[in-house]
Amino acid sequence: MHKQLITTSTNQYNVFVGNGIIENLADYLPKEYQNIMIITDSIVHELYTEDVRKYLPQSAQVSVSVVPAGENSKSIEQYYHLLTEAIKNNLDRKSLIVALGGGVIGDLAGFVAATYMRGIDFVQVPTTILAHDSSVGGKVAINHPEGKNLIGNFYPPQAVIFDTDTLKTLPNIEKRSGYAEVIKHGFISNEAFLEDVLETDITTDIPPMKLNDHLQKGIAVKADIVEKDEKEANIRKFLNFGHTLGHAIESELGYGNITHGEAVAIGMLFAIEVSEATYRISLPYQAYYHWLSANQYPLSLPPLSVQNLINRMKKDKKSENAMVQMVLLKEVGSPVTETISDQDLTNLLDNFLGKLGSE
Amino acid sequence: MHKQLITTSTNQYNVFVGNGIIENLADYLPKEYQNIMIITDSIVHELYTEDVRKYLPQSAQVSVSVVPAGENSKSIEQYYHLLTEAIKNNLDRKSLIVALGGGVIGDLAGFVAATYMRGIDFVQVPTTILAHDSSVGGKVAINHPEGKNLIGNFYPPQAVIFDTDTLKTLPNIEKRSGYAEVIKHGFISNEAFLEDVLETDITTDIPPMKLNDHLQKGIAVKADIVEKDEKEANIRKFLNFGHTLGHAIESELGYGNITHGEAVAIGMLFAIEVSEATYRISLPYQAYYHWLSANQYPLSLPPLSVQNLINRMKKDKKSENAMVQMVLLKEVGSPVTETISDQDLTNLLDNFLGKLGSE
Repeated sequence: MHKQLITTSTNQYNVFVGNGIIENLADYLPKEYQNIMIITDSIVHELYTEDVRKYLPQSAQVSVSVVPAGENSKSIEQYYHLLTEAIKNNLDRKSLIVALGGGVIGDLAGFVAATYMRGIDFVQVPTTILAHDSSVGGKVAINHPEGKNLIGNFYPPQAVIFDTDTLKTLPNIEKRSGYAEVIKHGFISNEAFLEDVLETDITTDIPPMKLNDHLQKGIAVKADIVEKDEKEANIRKFLNFGHTLGHAIESELGYGNITHGEAVAIGMLFAIEVSEATYRISLPYQAYYHWLSANQYPLSLPPLSVQNLINRMKKDKKSENAMVQMVLLKEVGSPVTETISDQDLTNLLDNFLGKLGSE
Repeated sequence: MHKQLITTSTNQYNVFVGNGIIENLADYLPKEYQNIMIITDSIVHELYTEDVRKYLPQSAQVSVSVVPAGENSKSIEQYYHLLTEAIKNNLDRKSLIVALGGGVIGDLAGFVAATYMRGIDFVQVPTTILAHDSSVGGKVAINHPEGKNLIGNFYPPQAVIFDTDTLKTLPNIEKRSGYAEVIKHGFISNEAFLEDVLETDITTDIPPMKLNDHLQKGIAVKADIVEKDEKEANIRKFLNFGHTLGHAIESELGYGNITHGEAVAIGMLFAIEVSEATYRISLPYQAYYHWLSANQYPLSLPPLSVQNLINRMKKDKKSENAMVQMVLLKEVGSPVTETISDQDLTNLLDNFLGKLGSE
């Protein structure tokens, strides 16, 4: 079991990563709780709720709320439903919410915890590769039809308990989605990590040692950044590498029609191309394109309107004064933020979408 | 103009109190904003929106969102509607929300600001006496049908700009509601302040010097407590003197059928009686009852079920492990929190409601 301590402006919490560690769940809780509500989705519920229940302290009253699997559950309706459930289950300020699932559950259950009675404790129990990213750093949110994560808080968990045995049941589409964030952590941190990921075939069983190593490294990159800039005043923006276009594609296609990671994977490809054009440098565009292709990432998209995408990029939380900001790379491991004019963006995006899928 | 600096865990902000100070609104903003959204209610809108617009920086783009006056606007529907308005108005992370109105608007607009893009700046421009309390301390929230303020955050404003000229148009029912919190600040802080309020007739025009003095003293009491305990881990609970029963009465009668302050006024009367019975002491119950009566506070209520009230008191955010906690007084200026057994509470409340209105 690997443990990493993360310091925020309001608390400190540990991220535990390892195979089979769910058995020690009770030991990883930072204090005693008398009333615990597990929030999970319909798929994870079938697989893991009983285990989690079994390993929670036996003295606690435990309830379970299940929402439909998928991004559509990050809605105002599900959020309000879960708050109502928390009231019905008599949760008070000393109670605990367990977010059992992937990024959708972490974001949704975390926002419920952040706002129920102005904030109660919650722990993240991630069950996807993608959640190595979303479970760390304290961002919680729900979506608005006009944009992803537009409604939320900065609200750190009390612990992240990441049993990597749960990843064995992940379908390939979820592995792809998660590995987009893993490789992002490589792009913005260091070449060796990036190259190790680029050499990994994620379409077959990834050796547990290698998978755990990638997840720990990804978490370390993220932890290092969020400790320095919890509220995203400056360097935390680097974590949005690939996300400006990624979010726009995701919401333009409709949540659920492309996974978060697959959309971000394309967003990163675009960010690399923009970086190369802006700084007149060479980045591993081809090696990355090849890895995406070999691992069956979707690289041809339905026809998309450049103007619609740009309008959505402007609604991104990172945009300022109606100008699009993107995270670019000066080299692997050296991210920067740049404001891009509408004219440049239109040309670059038009060109990128035109050739995408035809390479 | 009187200015008080308040330090929180995340920022510092000033509370400005004075007659006619809205004219200097632009000077009181802590920084420049390019996009400003005023949130107000239908009554305040008619009276003050144009003034506020006039005194905001002329370089800013300003939009106005109006919600119906009254507690019912602290709903999930209005909250979501305002978030949608913020998106439509292109507010970004550097934009400002102005909460123009009483406690309902401050709580609602504050929660919108706290959660829009994970938190943007907001300032409070209170227009009621009650809001001298609610605008300070960073509590923002909306209601759930099962309980008041069950959904919210701790999220301090960037400034509170309290132009006491706006209080001249307040109807008596709003003066009563507001003065309940003023006298609460007297009860929990010091005898001299309490006695000064007990000598004040609030059914006629209160001399501006006296009113401003009471508001500044009330704000000072609150500021002192919230600076020491922002997140309500301990002494901030004292500010809930009268609120455990007050909130229960308010929600049992239905929001809007009794004002917040009037319900709290009765809650304080009950808390005083419980204090006297618990500690075998004498408190100014009669003087307070006389002041309530002279100032036309409602002292007879429609028939209420003791069991329903207790169930609601247990849903209060201050309750722990399904036991009711109340703030009591050991003497004026010395509040304490006590856990009350269901049996004691039933007897005390039954007795209190029985004699209420018949004194």
